[in-house]
Amino acid sequence: MKKFLLIPDSFKGTMDSQSLCRIMEEAIGRHYPHANIVSVPVADGGEGTVDAFLAALGGQKIRLTVKGPLLEETESFYGLIDQGRAAVIEMAAAAGLPLISDRKDPLKATTFGVGQLILDAAARGVSRIIMGLGGSATNDGGCGAAAACGIRFLDAAGQAFIPAGGSLAAIHRIDPSAVNPLLAGISFTAMCDIDNPMFGPQGAARVFAPQKGANEREVEILDQGLEHLAALIRRDLDKDPAHLPGAGAAGAMGAGLHAFFGADLQSGIQVILDTVRFEELARDADLILTGEGRIDGQSIRGKAVLGIARRARKLGIPVVAIVGDIGQGVETLYDEGISGIFSINRVALDLPSALKRSQSDLSLTVDNLMRFIKRMEEGSSSS
Amino acid sequence: MKKFLLIPDSFKGTMDSQSLCRIMEEAIGRHYPHANIVSVPVADGGEGTVDAFLAALGGQKIRLTVKGPLLEETESFYGLIDQGRAAVIEMAAAAGLPLISDRKDPLKATTFGVGQLILDAAARGVSRIIMGLGGSATNDGGCGAAAACGIRFLDAAGQAFIPAGGSLAAIHRIDPSAVNPLLAGISFTAMCDIDNPMFGPQGAARVFAPQKGANEREVEILDQGLEHLAALIRRDLDKDPAHLPGAGAAGAMGAGLHAFFGADLQSGIQVILDTVRFEELARDADLILTGEGRIDGQSIRGKAVLGIARRARKLGIPVVAIVGDIGQGVETLYDEGISGIFSINRVALDLPSALKRSQSDLSLTVDNLMRFIKRMEEGSSSS
Repeated sequence: MKKFLLIPDSFKGTMDSQSLCRIMEEAIGRHYPHANIVSVPVADGGEGTVDAFLAALGGQKIRLTVKGPLLEETESFYGLIDQGRAAVIEMAAAAGLPLISDRKDPLKATTFGVGQLILDAAARGVSRIIMGLGGSATNDGGCGAAAACGIRFLDAAGQAFIPAGGSLAAIHRIDPSAVNPLLAGISFTAMCDIDNPMFGPQGAARVFAPQKGANEREVEILDQGLEHLAALIRRDLDKDPAHLPGAGAAGAMGAGLHAFFGADLQSGIQVILDTVRFEELARDADLILTGEGRIDGQSIRGKAVLGIARRARKLGIPVVAIVGDIGQGVETLYDEGISGIFSINRVALDLPSALKRSQSDLSLTVDNLMRFIKRMEEGSSSS
Repeated sequence: MKKFLLIPDSFKGTMDSQSLCRIMEEAIGRHYPHANIVSVPVADGGEGTVDAFLAALGGQKIRLTVKGPLLEETESFYGLIDQGRAAVIEMAAAAGLPLISDRKDPLKATTFGVGQLILDAAARGVSRIIMGLGGSATNDGGCGAAAACGIRFLDAAGQAFIPAGGSLAAIHRIDPSAVNPLLAGISFTAMCDIDNPMFGPQGAARVFAPQKGANEREVEILDQGLEHLAALIRRDLDKDPAHLPGAGAAGAMGAGLHAFFGADLQSGIQVILDTVRFEELARDADLILTGEGRIDGQSIRGKAVLGIARRARKLGIPVVAIVGDIGQGVETLYDEGISGIFSINRVALDLPSALKRSQSDLSLTVDNLMRFIKRMEEGSSSS
């Protein structure tokens, strides 16, 4: 074993992907001190996405003050990667629920600050913006961000305003003619791992607004607002993002990014694998280690382990998944390119007890696997 | 992988070693259908020892009626292996606690029937008898078995009698002159995995008689009886087994087998490895799979996994331990010859819930390991 590629997802609620990388690196290094170990912590678009990209690729963290979800001044940030040619933005850094956890108000919350982050990156000359969706406090269909970037939302009186979730119904016309020229030529990619449409029974408001603080009546207002917005986008922008998979992500930010910024909506893992140039990184690796908190046989859109396995299989490189729990039906995963699945559970314990020891269990599991691989490489020493 | 040697201990209270072998064979066979898979279920000397030896080596199960622990007629058995040259006897088959579970009486219980099993095997011309100690209802220091074989225990009046635990103190003299001539030239080996001496604070009676039904006063009688017996053995037989490791096994049957039959007291795993000719079986194996219900860093006398690893290391053959729980400090085991330790726990569950799924978890764990080994044998298919 000369080269390892580590590309684990987080164990949700227990260990972030950067911690997983560090623990794996340490355990591998004990047994393969001269190996090349490349770490790519997987980000899901939510909090920590910028740091994960910077950890994987290097780059610069840009800090600036923007409007927060309720238009208050907020310390925010984004990442510059790829020699400044691309920016990684996590929308939660300007429109995230933790920023206003005690003042949740999805009728008023806005993505305006996200637009400011976009403009700042555009002003620095990036040609690509990667936007992580997730953890949002908003339900504005990305109108706030669009307004910050010069797209005009006009009411019945022809007055421009900044729509929030509760005032989407007041939009009479969308005018994109004054969009900030800095955005010209920038390609947008949105990371979103949910399939929900923009509105309707499975839409952004009905499924996610309650956890953002909306009561039943408010959910109804938000859902009707998004349906109204979708109609205007069709009429005024000649775009129809409402039913794209992921349109409903982050208060329909997915739909808005597509409509106002021309964004592609992709699963997070595909964006990461493309951005880090997975095929180049992996081509000479002897083993890829990935992992997640729980694995099972259901092939879910955006599952990191599965996305990695499928692309590694084409390169002929074995992939090992280190996981918390192993659910039902994982047999199908081997056909997708996974070579082995190892749970970190080493003692029969209920989940709360197991979580307390997950870091050391992970370390010991990787340690054991490395010892075993090394021993098998040596073969039967007497034969 | 062309040859696998499976030599697992039982998962106590969950799966016996023969079930483990079957499940492992099935999982390995799915991925290596042409491999030679040799199974040696590990026996610990207690119930199931005869069946385990017969499963590993083939042979004949001899059924016969002997005296049970309370001298009632009892259906019993032993095994003939090695083309009839050796017998395997589990003493529990004639003196076991399950035979009288509702009538426990260690003052009266006798190993007489064990002596009858010995005589039957001797009459068939065996040159070696392997005796599994464990699960006994008795505390007679093997006097019952000895009496059945012609050794005379005389009381103060010079009358021969069959001593039981409660009447050891009545022995005045031991006379071995009339021992059954069938026993001449037969070598005895006792399997015992406990270190307790014959009597005293850590002796057979004090430590084990309570679970055989003795109250505090009876424990005292039994302990003093064994101390008295030890003195007579020294005086009349010129032997001193009282402090041999394992002398206190099975109601001091260990001491008695040594004193009356010249038995070697050995750990079960060493007896098994010798009897199956481990070095010959293992020499051309690519991988040895062993296992036990729980593994940790404590090097305990008679631990099967450790005994196997130490002997496999000399042959240079990798050993994998498939276990229930992995305890603390297992790092030292790798130095002893263990190449990998894999827990069957795949979901964080408390022990009662985990036990219910242990068979399928074992199967899936071996299945995954075989897939992984096979994939690693193939290497990076593109390089």
